[in-house]
Parts: sequence; C-alpha cells; structure tokens
Amino acid sequence: MPSLPDAATPDVARLAERAAAAQSHDPHIADVALKPAFFDWLCRMGDNSLILGHRISEWCGHGPVLEEDIALANTALDLIGHTQMWLGLAAEVEGSGRSADDLAFLRDAMKFRNLKLVELPNGDMAVTLMREFLFDAFHYELLTALTKSSSPRVAEIAAKALKEVSYHLERSSDLVVRLGDGTEESHARMQAALNKVWGYTGEMFAADAVDDAVAEAGIAPALADLLPLWQRTVAEVLDEATLSQPEQRFDAQTGGKQGRHTEHLGYILAEMQFLQRAYPGASW
Amino acid sequence: MPSLPDAATPDVARLAERAAAAQSHDPHIADVALKPAFFDWLCRMGDNSLILGHRISEWCGHGPVLEEDIALANTALDLIGHTQMWLGLAAEVEGSGRSADDLAFLRDAMKFRNLKLVELPNGDMAVTLMREFLFDAFHYELLTALTKSSSPRVAEIAAKALKEVSYHLERSSDLVVRLGDGTEESHARMQAALNKVWGYTGEMFAADAVDDAVAEAGIAPALADLLPLWQRTVAEVLDEATLSQPEQRFDAQTGGKQGRHTEHLGYILAEMQFLQRAYPGASW
Repeated sequence: MPSLPDAATPDVARLAERAAAAQSHDPHIADVALKPAFFDWLCRMGDNSLILGHRISEWCGHGPVLEEDIALANTALDLIGHTQMWLGLAAEVEGSGRSADDLAFLRDAMKFRNLKLVELPNGDMAVTLMREFLFDAFHYELLTALTKSSSPRVAEIAAKALKEVSYHLERSSDLVVRLGDGTEESHARMQAALNKVWGYTGEMFAADAVDDAVAEAGIAPALADLLPLWQRTVAEVLDEATLSQPEQRFDAQTGGKQGRHTEHLGYILAEMQFLQRAYPGASW
Repeated sequence: MPSLPDAATPDVARLAERAAAAQSHDPHIADVALKPAFFDWLCRMGDNSLILGHRISEWCGHGPVLEEDIALANTALDLIGHTQMWLGLAAEVEGSGRSADDLAFLRDAMKFRNLKLVELPNGDMAVTLMREFLFDAFHYELLTALTKSSSPRVAEIAAKALKEVSYHLERSSDLVVRLGDGTEESHARMQAALNKVWGYTGEMFAADAVDDAVAEAGIAPALADLLPLWQRTVAEVLDEATLSQPEQRFDAQTGGKQGRHTEHLGYILAEMQFLQRAYPGASW
C-alpha cells in the first residue's frame, strides 16, 4: 500500500493506483533473507522524511514572511506524505500486522533510523534552510537512483517523491544563494549555519551492512556513488552563495541510522506521539 | 499519604510520620458536598508546584553558572516534592483509586489547574527568575496562611512546604535585586522580563467558586486577603531592584485555574508524561 487511505474523501484515482500497485510483482517483498535489511532501510527512508517533515512543520505559523511560512508547511506535508509511502511499504515487508501509523507513532527513539542531521533543532531560518538544502541535495540524487530500483514498489514511491523533492532542492538551493550572497547579516548567519550542521552530513554516505545488503540486491544505489554528485551540487551552490565549505570533517556525527540519536529526537517523539500514546488507537 | 514512598531508601522517620498523618482526623476529607471544590483546589496547589517545578528543571545542566544550576535544580525538586503531597491528598479526597502519579501523568491539559504564569516558557534567566519571584511572593503568603488551615492535613503539608518556599523567596528576591540593580544589560533584561510576565500575575488573586468554597470552609484564606501582602513584597523588592512596576493590567491573562491554558502546557505535558503514556504503569 503506497499511501494511507483518506477516510474523509475517498479518491477513486488513488484507490485504482493502489490496487495496481498491489498487483505489481516485487520479488524482494517475499525475500526472507533480505527482510531485516530491507525493513530497516525502508524505515531509514521513512524516518528521514518524517523527522525532517516534523521539524519543518514546527515553523508553521512562525515563518518570517507569509510566503516562506506556506512554502515550509507544504514541504513538511510533502515529506510526511513520503513517510506514509515508505513506512507503509516497510510495514508490508515486515508482515507483522503493524501499519505505517504504528511505526511512526509507537516506536521509541532507539528504534528510529533517521539521520542525526534531520533531527537537529531548527535554530534560525539559516539553520533550517541550510540543513534542508544539504539533505535535499542528497535526497534528490538518492531518489533519482531509486527510480531504477530492482524493486518496482521502491521505484514507484521514488518516482512520486522525486517530483516534490526536485522542487524542494530548487527552492532550498535558491534560498541558500540569496541569503548567502545577501546582506552581511544573512551571509554571516548562513555561514554559521553551514559550520554548525556540516559535521552531520557525512552520515548520509556512511554505508553499513544494511546499505550494503539493499545495494547488493539492486534495491538502492551504493551510497559512495552518490557522494560525488552531492559534492558537486553543494560546491556549486555554496560557491554561488559566497559561502566557504568548512574545513572540519563532514562525518564527525554518525549513528542515527543505527538508532543512536541526539537528545533532540526524544523531545520530537514525545510531542509527535503524544496523541497516540495518550489515546491509543484514536482516529478521525 | 502526604508523600510518595521512596522505594530505594526506606525512611523510617517518614514512614512513622505518614502513619501519624493518616490518623489525624480531618473532617473535610469526608465532606461530600465540599469534595469537588476541595479536590479542584488541591489540584491547583499540586499543579502549580508541578508545572513550575518542571519548567525550572529544564535549566538542569544549562544554568549560567554551576551554583545557579544546582540552586534551580534543588528548587525544582522542592516543588515536585510538594506536588507529591498536594496531589497525594487530592487523590485521597477524590477517593476514586487514582494516585498522585496518575493525576500528574495521566491527566490531559484541560484537566490541569495551574496558573498560566507557571507554564510560561523559561525565556532567559531574567524571565525565569522574575516569574519565580512573583510566584514565590504569593506562594509564601498562601502557605503561611494555610498553616492555620481548618484542615489538619492541609496545614501539615503547608508547614513542610513553607520551610522550602521561604528559602525560594529569599533567593529569588535577592537575585531580582542583584540583577535589577546590576549592569545596564541585566537591568534591561529584568525590566523586560517583568513587563512580559506581569499580566499573568493577577490570576493568583482571581477567586472563583472553588476558591470561595475552600475559603468558606476555612481550608484556605480568601485570596483577596493575600493581595496587599504580595503587593507590599513586590513593591519593596522591585524598588530595591530599581525596576518599575508595569502600568499594564496585572490580570490580563487568566483561565489556567479553570483549565484554559496557553499552548505551552501541552508541550510540557507531552514531554513530562511521555514515559507513562508510552509504558503505562512502568515503575522502578
């Protein structure tokens, strides 16, 4: 099931699409040996979108100008939409009767598989935009490669998400340039933001056994192959933005993908999961 | 039961004290007509301590200097200790089998009865200290009056809490003076903090039917009687701190005592209640 049903407004097109998806043969879903890695990897995809989406949604009603407020809220909605698809497939692969909602709202911090980068506090608009840009540049290359996944279900989700993420990258890189090459104040803030989050970017490319297993199965690309593409985009945008790439290591902060998170994730989950924790099974 | 047992370090003196307390005859506890108001009022006492204690505990590990960090953490512990006594008695008066922990961790925001003042975000140290001082000055007068309560159980809790709250007031008023009459920066911050929280102080003295009922039963003083005492303390301290009492109304923000809270309370509860919501009944 690529997306959760919307009980309030049944969508015939979506129902048909879902029925078609259910019929597309995906040999990986029944591959017992691959299951733990495939499930974990799908959680990584879903959790990155979920946690970054939640972080960005915190700006809703607090954006510096109306247009940015709306753009950020829309980006958050896109990402949470992708989460439904990724975690929906993860639940299907797991085959234990859990739903995408169960995975989102009833897992504890140590079971979350998102990058540390996406759970970092929003800080000011500079930190929010820089964090999003650095992730978008990776997300775009990853989804592009995933459209050619050996898993038709993964390829299908990636193709849908890529349309929105292409726009996310266009918007965030544009803003990084405008603010980096803006006033003295905006330049200083963007450089400070870059320095702050830089050490968290290397985790995106730090492959472990899970990444290796899904790459070997042809489901996902080797992360090392994405690195030069990301580096090129980042170098071009930072150059145009008159920002300097930090000299510090970019992979100083890792472990999120394996469930070792910063303290910030617990606070995010406490807030995000409150309703389902307080009123188990509540729905509307 | 005036205080929750400490499973790790049984305290014989406290056990004996508790047994004695259980024997002290308190006619109000069995007064069916008074029960709803008495319960509500006890929740107000407990919730003020709990929410202010939680807010202050947020500074733990983040204080500007080590001594202040420890002082704030100790203040928070005192207040949470008072909460156990007030909510313990509230649970006893309610007589529905709920415990102090149930009241603290399983009520939703609308059922909380704390003043809006105590749920306000910490802001900087100036806001934290000014908020605490304005509450301490009220809390001190209230507890002093409560030591003469017609309810022996209430008088007993008040006597215990008063010892600690006397020190809270001494410390917070001292710091308001030192920072108000300090550098240009510290003075400006303290004045800004005072202006920010002033409109929330009037709720402490805004009596409603619950306050009237417990006052009539002799359990608590009339809040109007505390106002001149509070005003005198506040005027003296602000004067010594070279701070100006704001001209705005001091009762612009009310409703917390009746369960109408700012958005901030929900976030506090999401964090504070996470463990019991995620792992119901968990204990150590």
